[in-house]
Formats: sequence, C-alpha cells, structure tokens
Amino acid sequence: MFSDFKLMDERPVYVQLKDYVQDMIVKGHLLEHQKLPSTRELSKLLAVSRNTVLNAYAELELDGIIYAVKGKGHFIGKVTTLETSSIEIDWKQRLNETTLLADEIDLIRQDIHWKKGMISFTSIAPEEKLFDVENFKRAFLTRMSIEGDIVLNYGYAKGYKPLIDHLLSYMEMKGVDISNKDILITNGFTEGLDILLSSLAKKSGRVLCENPTHHAALKLFSLHGLDVHGIDMQDDGIDMEQVEKTLADKDFDFAYLIPSYHNPTGIVTSSEKRSAIFQLFSKYQIPIIEDGFNEELRYSSSHLAPLIAFSGIGNNIVYIGSFSKILFPGLRVGWILADRELIDSLESMKRARTIHTSTLDQAVLYQYLQDGYFEKYLKKARFVYKKKYELARQACIQYIPYSRITGDGGLHLFIELKEDVDARLLLEKCYDKGVVFYPGDVFYTNGRGSNTFRLGFSRLADDDIVRGIQIIGDTLKTL
Amino acid sequence: MFSDFKLMDERPVYVQLKDYVQDMIVKGHLLEHQKLPSTRELSKLLAVSRNTVLNAYAELELDGIIYAVKGKGHFIGKVTTLETSSIEIDWKQRLNETTLLADEIDLIRQDIHWKKGMISFTSIAPEEKLFDVENFKRAFLTRMSIEGDIVLNYGYAKGYKPLIDHLLSYMEMKGVDISNKDILITNGFTEGLDILLSSLAKKSGRVLCENPTHHAALKLFSLHGLDVHGIDMQDDGIDMEQVEKTLADKDFDFAYLIPSYHNPTGIVTSSEKRSAIFQLFSKYQIPIIEDGFNEELRYSSSHLAPLIAFSGIGNNIVYIGSFSKILFPGLRVGWILADRELIDSLESMKRARTIHTSTLDQAVLYQYLQDGYFEKYLKKARFVYKKKYELARQACIQYIPYSRITGDGGLHLFIELKEDVDARLLLEKCYDKGVVFYPGDVFYTNGRGSNTFRLGFSRLADDDIVRGIQIIGDTLKTL
Repeated sequence: MFSDFKLMDERPVYVQLKDYVQDMIVKGHLLEHQKLPSTRELSKLLAVSRNTVLNAYAELELDGIIYAVKGKGHFIGKVTTLETSSIEIDWKQRLNETTLLADEIDLIRQDIHWKKGMISFTSIAPEEKLFDVENFKRAFLTRMSIEGDIVLNYGYAKGYKPLIDHLLSYMEMKGVDISNKDILITNGFTEGLDILLSSLAKKSGRVLCENPTHHAALKLFSLHGLDVHGIDMQDDGIDMEQVEKTLADKDFDFAYLIPSYHNPTGIVTSSEKRSAIFQLFSKYQIPIIEDGFNEELRYSSSHLAPLIAFSGIGNNIVYIGSFSKILFPGLRVGWILADRELIDSLESMKRARTIHTSTLDQAVLYQYLQDGYFEKYLKKARFVYKKKYELARQACIQYIPYSRITGDGGLHLFIELKEDVDARLLLEKCYDKGVVFYPGDVFYTNGRGSNTFRLGFSRLADDDIVRGIQIIGDTLKTL
Repeated sequence: MFSDFKLMDERPVYVQLKDYVQDMIVKGHLLEHQKLPSTRELSKLLAVSRNTVLNAYAELELDGIIYAVKGKGHFIGKVTTLETSSIEIDWKQRLNETTLLADEIDLIRQDIHWKKGMISFTSIAPEEKLFDVENFKRAFLTRMSIEGDIVLNYGYAKGYKPLIDHLLSYMEMKGVDISNKDILITNGFTEGLDILLSSLAKKSGRVLCENPTHHAALKLFSLHGLDVHGIDMQDDGIDMEQVEKTLADKDFDFAYLIPSYHNPTGIVTSSEKRSAIFQLFSKYQIPIIEDGFNEELRYSSSHLAPLIAFSGIGNNIVYIGSFSKILFPGLRVGWILADRELIDSLESMKRARTIHTSTLDQAVLYQYLQDGYFEKYLKKARFVYKKKYELARQACIQYIPYSRITGDGGLHLFIELKEDVDARLLLEKCYDKGVVFYPGDVFYTNGRGSNTFRLGFSRLADDDIVRGIQIIGDTLKTL
C-alpha cells in the first residue's frame, strides 16, 4: 500500500495523493474503516512534505471519503461497493437515419490516410505560424481586466453585446442597411446554417445553390432532408441563364450562395452579376442565404458589396459570416445578419440548443477587433497567402494539363481536368508518390466533378507547393 | 467633408479614419474619382499625425477603395452605387412549428421583469465575485505558451485530447469503468442533450423523468416531439413504486434522471435508490441519460457513485457532465460519457452541426483543472455557498409556512406550499414588494406544481436572502 504511489504529472502533489487514495478505494485495495498511515508516517514513506499529506487528508475528509477519530487517526469512510451488472445495448440499432447518414457522409471518416512526410493539399485551414498569438494574449488580458467576472459567467443567447455592435457597424461599412436587421452570434458558420435550416419550414423542400459548393453546407442540406439543385459556375459566378430557367420551372424554399470567395472554386462573383442575382431572386420572392466565406481574403483589389447590401431595407437576404478561416478557427464564432424578427426567433432556437456561444471567445475576439489587431493581421496574412497563391497558380499553369483553373484568392485553387480524367485515380497514384489533395466530386450536388480536385496551399512550404504540383502534373501524364 | 470626423473610440486613429472614408463613400458623400485631400492637408485639418493619414490611405488603397496617381494624389476608386430594392418576406410565416414552439416555451421570454434594487431569487448562476479570475488568467497564459498556435487553429469534433483524457480519469475516480467508454466534448450540457436527442431513433417516443425536472431538458424534449412521463420525487429520489408500475405498463425510449443534485428540488438520490434504479431500468433494457448536474456542489459528506458507475462494462447509461454551473458558465464546455461506439456516431453529428467546441475554452479549462485550481476553487465555493444555503434554509423554516422544503446543497431550495396556494399569485404580490423567484410549475411535466417555487440564492447578499424570504413569508400569510 502506498509503495506504488508515483507522481504522475505537474498537478499539486496533495491532489495526486488524494486521487491515489480514491483510486485505491475504487480498486478495493482500501477497505471500509481501514486505518490510514499517520500523516507523519506517510510523509516519510512517500518523501513528501507533511503538509502535503495533511492537505490530501483534509480534502478527502471534506469529500466524506475518509473520517478522523480524535487521537486515533484517519480511517476509510463508507465504501459503497457497487454490485455492477453490465447490460449490453445495441446503440447503432437505436440511432435514427439522420445520424447514420451523418456518419456516412462525414468527409473526415472517408479521409485519405495522410502519412508523415507527405505533401498534403487537403487542408484549407490557416497557417498556424502566422497566428498573432501575442496580440491575442494582449486582447485576452485587456478584456479580462475590464470585466473578467462577466466574461466568465452566463451571457445572452443572442451574443456578446459589444461584439454584436462591432459586427453591425462592420457590416454597415460594407454598405448594408442595418436599420431593420440584427445579429445572432453562433458557434461558427456551421451552427449558423444549421440553426437556420432547423428553423425554416419545408414548403417545396428544394434549395438552389452553386455547383460545386461548400461541402459542410451540402452535408447539412442532406441531413435536413432538402432536395439540392446545383447550378454551374462561370468565371464571374453562377450561370444566370440556368438559374432563370430553374426558377421559372420550379419553386424553391431558398438559395444558398457564396458570392464573395466561392468554396471550392475560389470564384468571386462580379458586381454586375451580384446585382442580377439579387434582382432575379427578388422577382421570384426567394430568400438567399449568403455565405460571406473569406470575403476578407480576396486579393483582387476591387471593392465588392455583399448581396445583402443590395436589399436595402428589405429582408430577403440572410448573411452568415465568420472570421474563422482567416483568423482563429479554434474560436468558434460566427454570426447571422438578418431581419430583426427572424433573428429574434433564431435566438430562441439557439438558447434551446446551446444556451449561448462561449462568452470568452466572443469577448476576446471583440477586443482583438476593437484594438485594430485584425487589420494588421489581415495585411500580413494577405501578403503571405497571396505569395503562396501566385506560386501555386504559376506551378499549376506550368505543370498541370488542366482544362480550367479557378481561384481569385484565398487559400486554395480548383482544377478541372479533361472530361475523361478520373481525379480519384489520379489521387491514388499521387498518394503512392506522397502527395494528397481533395477529389472535387465531394463538392458536387449531382455526382459530377469526377475530373476535378481542390488544392489547399495555406499550410505548405513554398518548395512543397511547387514539388507537389509538379508530381501531380507528372503523374497526370502517365494516366 | 472631414470636418465632422470625430475619434469614436480607442481603436487606432488610422483605422477610424479609414472607416470614416468608407462610410462617406457608402453614404454617397464621396464620389467616384473624387480627389482626396493630400496627406499633409488632412493631417493638419484633423490634427492627427501625417503617418496616421498615410496609414489610412495605404489601407484604403490596399482594399481598392481609393487609388493613387503619381504626383497628383489620391482619388476615390470605383464606387458601385447599388440600386437596392427592398423585398419584404414574412419570415414568421416561413418558420416551422418547432421554432415557433421554441419561441413560445422560452422561459427568458416569459421572465418576470426584474427591476433594479429588487431581491431576485430567480438565478442559479454562480456568484461572479467568487470567480477565480487570476488563476484562470494563469491557466490561459500557461496553455498559450505551451501551444498557443494549436489552441487557436481547428481542433477535433470529439474534443481537445488532453481535456478528454483528464475527464476520463476524473470519471474513473468516481468508480466508472471507462474501458469500453469514450467522451465527446459539447458546448455545455444543453448541446450534449440536444445532440443525443437528435441522434436517437423514436420507437415509443416516450421518455421517463423525475417530476419536476430541469426546464432546459423539458424544453428540448418537447422540441424533439417526445412524450414526457414525470414521476414524483421522494426525499431520497424518484418514487420507485411509480416507476415500476409505469415501466410495467408502457415502453420507453429512455429515462432522463438527475440523481446527484436534482434540479429544481435539490434532492440527492440515496446510494440504495441508485442501485435500485439501475437494476430496474436494466431489467427493462431502458437506457438512462444521467445528468451529472452540480454533483460537485453536494454539501452532504457521503461519497455517492454516479449511476454510470453501476453499469460496469455495460453501456446502458449515458452520462452528461458539465462544470458550468459551479465553475465558468461563460465557457461552454460539457461532455457526454458513454459507450464508445455511440460516442463515435454522436461525433459525426457534432461535426456536422458545430465542427467542434471552442478549443480555447477546452484548453484553458484543461489547464485550470490540471493545475489543481479547480479543487482549490471548489473548496472556497462550497464554503461560501454552504453558508448561504444554511442561511436560506433557516430563514425558510423560520418565515415560510411550507408543507415541504427540499435541497441538500447547491445553489437553490425548492418550496412546496399547501395544495391550495397559488405560487404565481404569491409571485405577483411579492413582485410589488420587490421580491421575485421562479414559480415551480415551469419545472413540472404535467401542469402541476402550482403550489411550488424555486429560490436561487447563489448571487444574493446574506441580508437580502433573509429579508427576501421574510417578505415572501409575510406575503404568504396575507393570501
């Protein structure tokens, strides 16, 4: 007894000693009313200070695990030895269709096994080395010193007021009329879309979107049992002729569009087309869910207004924003900007489902934005990513016999090969040569895109970008 | 122009100047190709340093909002004046039943209007002044210095590994066999329950629970269209005779129980009854969702094992835990401990819905627990809350003609009055005298409890506790 006590980690010794005793009881090595060594004995035996033992015993007594008898010492208290009996439940068989589907269409589960040393173009997460950790710490300490206790206690389902106000004027700067609109803070873009989909009534059950489009959105659409209609992408955005035909032909509950920096193609919808999109969907009274994805990472220098700016005091556009992809994905903070009444209802759903988004995340992000660190960081990030972007694009043009290459910025490029080339076969071959990327078909609504793939370059070193793309190109020629 | 420029807040001046210019463009005061004042002029005009103006102009140029002509100065770039047209969508009419229901049963919306200076017994959130802000900062800085960049980037849907491991051994200490179990980190208890309810198939569509019970759970049950059967509470836990009858009579998808510190009654289920509960539900092959709510805040000093400890290597208990109520509710971190395969499926749902819980929250919480601050804080919190608890209980016994009073610890007491007393009427009268509390009926499954109410005392000063309870007592006598 106690001879096998070892300090496991950097936790205070008395805590580890306390845990040890509890563990011994659980394992049945210490029995009810058994006497414990005196604090003096034990401190000698374990070569720890007597105070440590005293602390541990005091804690154990407080928890009612041991008891003290004056002049006699400490004893193990009531030990409820549980007659456990193990029941086997077949959980899989108790799960619903949606959950099994979520399992099935989970990209991560299908992910190609990345091995150390490989060149992976799969990720479009930001480069960690770029993170502005120091200013983030500053923002944290500033906010904590201003209202640490409030930051750590319950907040409001709608979100942290200072952040909401900041984002409202941020969106106003982009030309949005916010007079009849409001913001709900969510756990990133994904929860925003999920709450929205969970709240909208199914009329036609149909949603119109760009094809290809953001995989997380496609996943949520199918989990919500929606019927997805994808429209081809032209170099300046969605194909309006197809849209017009489709809208004239069928009714839709809403459209989901990523005009600012389209995932996965990286296409930026032109100003003219934005206006045309807004007019057309307004004519058909079909609301648009606008995904503001990476708006901030456009390298083309013309100022483009988001679709919601076109709606003036109208309320038919629901904008979902997030800084995750460029700032700190580890902080799960996104927002829905929409009609005030709609936000009001979404807030109840948010409260019912997660109470509210982490106040800590919101408060620190707010301080970070407020102190102007974001602009500084964005400047640096744009500079670094733009270089990688140009390098990757150049390499693709040089090495890959593509039929189309798109991407006006951001953290990835999208490649379309000749009709008959199978990108998954290409991936297989490249895998053997230590290069992986995302096959494009996962982004398509109708099983198309077998000849496409996405190259994320944000986290790769320059020479890996070039070498990786060269390998892909060489492999292509052998197919 | 520029004469009405004012420094609004503590953001860097160049950022505010930049925003001002953008705002002027949006508002139409600055027109396409209009010349801007020279940096020298403007710095004089606004009495800011020339560098500030240079910075602002550089930023604006980078964003493509203005352009420079060598030797001529800066000019406003392409201004897309949007022909906005406003469409009115009747969102309420496009929302589904569930959302309208969420709105309707949202407690916050019905909340009695609290006025400054009132004594409010409604909250059971922890007392902010108790918060261990300094050690929390320490934990943050420690974690950030160890792996700040990782903390800020994407994490795993399942959760932050070090935290998961810590919680697994934490639960093992409570006597749980974790060999076939795993943990999914969620945004607090509420998301944990919601994900679970969203994943379970509806067979009978019936759930059995204690009556009264946690309101957030009741809300989720009805949002998921479940048929709730409440069983009365005895002083040592749920009424087993009623349970036996009910189980013999009807089939249930699962049971939801709060054995450790029941909300709202504050009853702690005895060890004997825990064993009996486990045996009975096992016999009927009905899984139990165990809510570990405030286990840590029991003041009674006997060590009680959670239900899941009784299941050994079985898998019929799903345990949902959270430190929120006692530690930092602002951090949304809870966890589901259950059968490994089940957790595996829930993880896909979690990923589809919110990607993952804030890595920052998880990492700092982990460090805080790891450094042993939690035990220290708990000791302090227990001491403070226990005093308030005894004070409140004493005052109730002295002033309130109750027929039953329950609460073995935690942050609140539950009062049952004589059958014919209407707690909402009492609330009305007390409101006029500046005292508010929660009418108990909101916690009941079947419209009962009109003669009950909950008193949360965690955030009240000692004399307010006594004075408030005295006022309630006096008012009662006038009814």
